Amino acid sequence: MKQVKVSNNVIRRLPRYLRKLDELSENGIDKISSRQLGELLGLTSSQVRQDFNCFGEFGQQGYGYKVSALREQIAAILGMDRGFSAILIGVGNIGRAMMENFCFTDWGVDLAAAFDIKPALIGTDYKGVHIYAMEELERYLDEKHVDIAVLTVPKTAAVSVTEILTAHGIDAIWNFTNVELTEPNSSTIVENVHFSDSLLSLSYYVAERRDEQTAGQAREKQ
Amino acid sequence: MKQVKVSNNVIRRLPRYLRKLDELSENGIDKISSRQLGELLGLTSSQVRQDFNCFGEFGQQGYGYKVSALREQIAAILGMDRGFSAILIGVGNIGRAMMENFCFTDWGVDLAAAFDIKPALIGTDYKGVHIYAMEELERYLDEKHVDIAVLTVPKTAAVSVTEILTAHGIDAIWNFTNVELTEPNSSTIVENVHFSDSLLSLSYYVAERRDEQTAGQAREKQ
Repeated sequence: MKQVKVSNNVIRRLPRYLRKLDELSENGIDKISSRQLGELLGLTSSQVRQDFNCFGEFGQQGYGYKVSALREQIAAILGMDRGFSAILIGVGNIGRAMMENFCFTDWGVDLAAAFDIKPALIGTDYKGVHIYAMEELERYLDEKHVDIAVLTVPKTAAVSVTEILTAHGIDAIWNFTNVELTEPNSSTIVENVHFSDSLLSLSYYVAERRDEQTAGQAREKQ
Repeated sequence: MKQVKVSNNVIRRLPRYLRKLDELSENGIDKISSRQLGELLGLTSSQVRQDFNCFGEFGQQGYGYKVSALREQIAAILGMDRGFSAILIGVGNIGRAMMENFCFTDWGVDLAAAFDIKPALIGTDYKGVHIYAMEELERYLDEKHVDIAVLTVPKTAAVSVTEILTAHGIDAIWNFTNVELTEPNSSTIVENVHFSDSLLSLSYYVAERRDEQTAGQAREKQ
């Protein structure tokens, strides 16, 4: 599929559309209008249509979208059909959590190897993935094609490992370290996982509810 | 601060503004225009102004925003000044990773206790947080005020633990389990952490780059 430059905001919404379409499929729904889909996601119907128009024509005026076809098209736009390969670096708590619970293949990504410095882990397999010594990383990168590095090392190792990765041609890093990895004009694609964004959205909704409760109590007292 | 109903999309952008403003502060920048702030975040200046107008008047026409004042206002809107308390349930890989690496207090949240079923963990402290037995959860909820439950239990325990939480008045769950926790009309505030959204955005950018590389090679051959 030909890719066109689209705004970051549209790209950020595509995985949410994908999840919602999967949910609809599971519930046996095979057709949906832009208005309905927008309502489910808190977007206007024109926003939904605009988002999909970035990538060419989906759906039909007055008919809506076929859920399975739209799902396949979005999956293709997101590169889920490219067979990207990934390696995970740092088999600590968060690394193990990802290997154990996150199904990379569901999202079209093959987790091919993991790397760590702990002797007890090196040479073992965890959830079907072989754990190599960190010293083997450079040779691995030279010999194999790797699209994405999942960076789950401690903060202190984040920059030095990133230098090895970029020096050996890795151009995409999924960064769990909370360390700013690259210079502003670096060509490396870095996706930072910011847990705080998620917690703060939750915090907003809790604050909103507490205010409503306080207002409710004030009304009762009157 | 009085809270008004604002769209989910605005709320999702507020933590990103906050992070960017913190970054600007660290770099000694104390004033910024809506155009500049928008450029840094891939938004238009009118989008930025609209977002902030949801919460009343920030900044001055022709002057821009004072970074520190705007930061404080956004933090207050997000409830970071409310002193929310949280408990973490499930001290497995992801639970430990959050206790170890995620600084709850930076975001105005006090992680007051953790709960697990493993005898070796119960009664110990991890990163300054006491780990209680799961059997103590109900009494704890009855005796203490808890705003947010961080749910990091295995998938199989997700629903049963959620039932205990909601039965004891918890109305906000930060859900790391990838399990759909509540009925569509439930009043529980659930924030799901979807790692896949982040990976798929990264995957999109990798696909885009691979297409550019392929196009570049095709041009060279001509």
